[in-house]
Amino acid sequence: MEILLSKIGEIVEGKLSGGHNKIICGAAPFDMATQDDITFADSSKFLKKIDKTDAGAVIVPKDFAESSKTTVMVENPRVAFSKVLTLFYPHEKPVYLNSSAGISSNAYTGKNFLYGKDISIAPFVVIQNNVTIGDRVVIHPNTVIGDNVVIGDDVEIYPNVTILERCRIGNRVIIHAGTVIGSDGFGFAPDGESYFKIPQTGIVQIDDDVEIGANNTIDRATFGKTRICRGVKVDNLVHIAHNVTVGEDSIIVAQVGISGSVTIGRHAVLAGQAGIAGHITLGDNVTIGPQAGVAASVQSDQVMSGTPEMPHKLWLRVQRLIYRLPELKKKLSEIEKRLNRIEQDTLIL
Amino acid sequence: MEILLSKIGEIVEGKLSGGHNKIICGAAPFDMATQDDITFADSSKFLKKIDKTDAGAVIVPKDFAESSKTTVMVENPRVAFSKVLTLFYPHEKPVYLNSSAGISSNAYTGKNFLYGKDISIAPFVVIQNNVTIGDRVVIHPNTVIGDNVVIGDDVEIYPNVTILERCRIGNRVIIHAGTVIGSDGFGFAPDGESYFKIPQTGIVQIDDDVEIGANNTIDRATFGKTRICRGVKVDNLVHIAHNVTVGEDSIIVAQVGISGSVTIGRHAVLAGQAGIAGHITLGDNVTIGPQAGVAASVQSDQVMSGTPEMPHKLWLRVQRLIYRLPELKKKLSEIEKRLNRIEQDTLIL
Amino acid sequence: MEILLSKIGEIVEGKLSGGHNKIICGAAPFDMATQDDITFADSSKFLKKIDKTDAGAVIVPKDFAESSKTTVMVENPRVAFSKVLTLFYPHEKPVYLNSSAGISSNAYTGKNFLYGKDISIAPFVVIQNNVTIGDRVVIHPNTVIGDNVVIGDDVEIYPNVTILERCRIGNRVIIHAGTVIGSDGFGFAPDGESYFKIPQTGIVQIDDDVEIGANNTIDRATFGKTRICRGVKVDNLVHIAHNVTVGEDSIIVAQVGISGSVTIGRHAVLAGQAGIAGHITLGDNVTIGPQAGVAASVQSDQVMSGTPEMPHKLWLRVQRLIYRLPELKKKLSEIEKRLNRIEQDTLIL
Repeated sequence: MEILLSKIGEIVEGKLSGGHNKIICGAAPFDMATQDDITFADSSKFLKKIDKTDAGAVIVPKDFAESSKTTVMVENPRVAFSKVLTLFYPHEKPVYLNSSAGISSNAYTGKNFLYGKDISIAPFVVIQNNVTIGDRVVIHPNTVIGDNVVIGDDVEIYPNVTILERCRIGNRVIIHAGTVIGSDGFGFAPDGESYFKIPQTGIVQIDDDVEIGANNTIDRATFGKTRICRGVKVDNLVHIAHNVTVGEDSIIVAQVGISGSVTIGRHAVLAGQAGIAGHITLGDNVTIGPQAGVAASVQSDQVMSGTPEMPHKLWLRVQRLIYRLPELKKKLSEIEKRLNRIEQDTLIL
Repeated sequence: MEILLSKIGEIVEGKLSGGHNKIICGAAPFDMATQDDITFADSSKFLKKIDKTDAGAVIVPKDFAESSKTTVMVENPRVAFSKVLTLFYPHEKPVYLNSSAGISSNAYTGKNFLYGKDISIAPFVVIQNNVTIGDRVVIHPNTVIGDNVVIGDDVEIYPNVTILERCRIGNRVIIHAGTVIGSDGFGFAPDGESYFKIPQTGIVQIDDDVEIGANNTIDRATFGKTRICRGVKVDNLVHIAHNVTVGEDSIIVAQVGISGSVTIGRHAVLAGQAGIAGHITLGDNVTIGPQAGVAASVQSDQVMSGTPEMPHKLWLRVQRLIYRLPELKKKLSEIEKRLNRIEQDTLIL
Repeated sequence: MEILLSKIGEIVEGKLSGGHNKIICGAAPFDMATQDDITFADSSKFLKKIDKTDAGAVIVPKDFAESSKTTVMVENPRVAFSKVLTLFYPHEKPVYLNSSAGISSNAYTGKNFLYGKDISIAPFVVIQNNVTIGDRVVIHPNTVIGDNVVIGDDVEIYPNVTILERCRIGNRVIIHAGTVIGSDGFGFAPDGESYFKIPQTGIVQIDDDVEIGANNTIDRATFGKTRICRGVKVDNLVHIAHNVTVGEDSIIVAQVGISGSVTIGRHAVLAGQAGIAGHITLGDNVTIGPQAGVAASVQSDQVMSGTPEMPHKLWLRVQRLIYRLPELKKKLSEIEKRLNRIEQDTLIL
């Protein structure tokens, strides 16, 4: 693919330092780009050595001074570069043989299936009864959509996903392969030594612009809804239990586990393998460190790490001391010996 | 749905304080119930404020004194309420077009498929050869049942589940979406720097009344069986390795990992993200805390937390001191200074 | 099945102590073997009590002295026993009705599907466009192979697996059920408080002789490739992020999480539930303990444990002291009291 640099400038709303007629054939990282590629630099680390990249053009922050390179100055180089990547690596709609009106003849569709325009339903997809999906929805092979599910526009659902009955998916949502949405919450009433299953009557609601990674599990609410709010991004192998709310624009990294009835504010970040205990609240802009075990609610704007959780700055000091425990123990023994000697001396005195 | 309160009383084997002819239209939690709903209260927290719920009737413990509310007195209010929920939210058997005798024409069934009455086999289910399933078994779409698998009565298997050859599933078992049962145990013989695969010849056996969550992995035994005993409840994203035995009525919370050849007694509880090292034994009624790393066997009736595991009460004290390590370190330095001064003084003396 | 012991000797390249005409009907562990079985003993624990097994023959190290048992002396008893297991438990190719040339009539195959001889494509497998697979490849039911995927010879892919576009799989690779290969790397550019998706343009490449467990997620690279090198063995529920390289003959145990752009050397071992932070390097022969949280690069041949990681020997001492923190705290208080007394005394003096 060949694109004029001036065209790229338009798309990313950038200002060119020159080279309007330069032809760009690809987009690549700083160290891998060749002279036909465009790249980007947004940190001083890369901006300082901008002349070292072989790229034919570099997307830079708008306040970046002159360089010998052809530059495209933008508000947010990383976002601009992502937009350019989308140009060179367009996300193609899958093509299946024997499809009609976008529905593979190998798919199963139940009664009252309502769908918008330009959809793609792959082979061996199961659409149960009374399902509604919007325009340009792509459902990849072997995915199952349960009864009464509603899905918005421009949604992409990868293979082998399961979305169970009555769950609701917004617009521009991406769900990666193998994920389960709407499995029963883990709720049982002790009955002697055994457990009696508590019916899970609620749903999962996923709002607009959410991306859910691969092989996640998001349980339906016991009552009401488990809710993943607008703009949330979830990595792989994450567990989100019944009645959890994850606030807008939050990030949940791989293998995090969130227990039942947790409420997470907006723009939070939960690092990999963290665990959140049930029925607590994490405020807005909270950051939780990797592998942290959070047992109590966290106020907005706090950064917490460790198990049990503590302010990240304290954790940094604590973890240095954990290494040094044998040394502290030794020091304690020495002190005791010195004390013994002094006490003896004092007695002698 | 409308149900007479007296009918509900019968079903939960409860005693009414009145209102036999009251019509109940739903079941809801204490704070969400309206006057057409029934709710429950089983802790003093809710019983104290029983007059605050809008519910038309409240299920209470049988020794609960009079209140202005219409009450249904029962042995176990939570179990009774779960039973009422089942009335109002009946678990409906899925309906597929083009099914015959409960088997979708879009399913694949191999040779010698033996099945009981009132079954439901969904589209794109694969039943390999020599499979036997009991009465009222529901297999949701895109699930795969391997050769020679035996499944009991009243079993429900959600979409995209894989049950591999020769595994055995008891009665009234529920298996949630995406779970894999009977994958190979992780066994390799070192052969120089490489590894030679040890064939995994055993099976997985899941006994009656077990519920297995979504996207779990339960490996087959190297020899013999990996066994999940009666009444066990497993949450999501749990890993159970080859040759593990989980005793009756045990609870395994999300993202727990159990290594090979572990034996867990009956009525144990493993909290979320805990890890159990291989070849150890956890006794009956053992409780393991969240994120605990259990490296050694645990006697019956113990509560253990932390990594490495320690008695929970000790862990509570230890974790408070982990926060305070910088303070302890500072104290140690002060003590040293004081000692230095004293020793100097003593010398002067 | 009946096999002459002399034949077994040939297959495992072993030397018999006698019993060339003995008929062996099975292979079983030391404690479970009957007189028709062969077993193995490779540690002094079992060799010392070799006369206690009921097995008709025992595979032993080649330097093992005489015993009353019939023995087969080999270089590596465990590998030899694994080979014998393969004889008695041959891995059978699945048999589906209505297959033609090894492709089930219930499978979907896209355009330009190139395949070798003796393949097995199960019902409801989806092979998208321009896929190439080698000889003797077995693809189990409901697995999805994306556009332009290339798969080598003698590969087995279990049910409900997803391999996404352009990924490359070598020879003799085994992929267990529910695993996702080639999901998007977790990459987003902050755009105000929201996040803009960074297109993930790379692939996953899995080299020869790799085994990948069940319900894993291996993300494609942002650019270039995520690579699992020859001989790597991965357990279940493991997350491997974009642009990770795992070196040859490494072992990754269940529920490990490896963050983006990590490089792992050859012959490493990562124990269960360990987490590896992004952009670091683990050298050759590195061992990481269970649940460890590795935040910095690790030199070759190191054994590291704990969170944050530290040399394993230090960790052994540290963890003993973690238990003893309350005791150390108490000691500190006692020391302070003694100091107070001494200082008072000294003042009096």
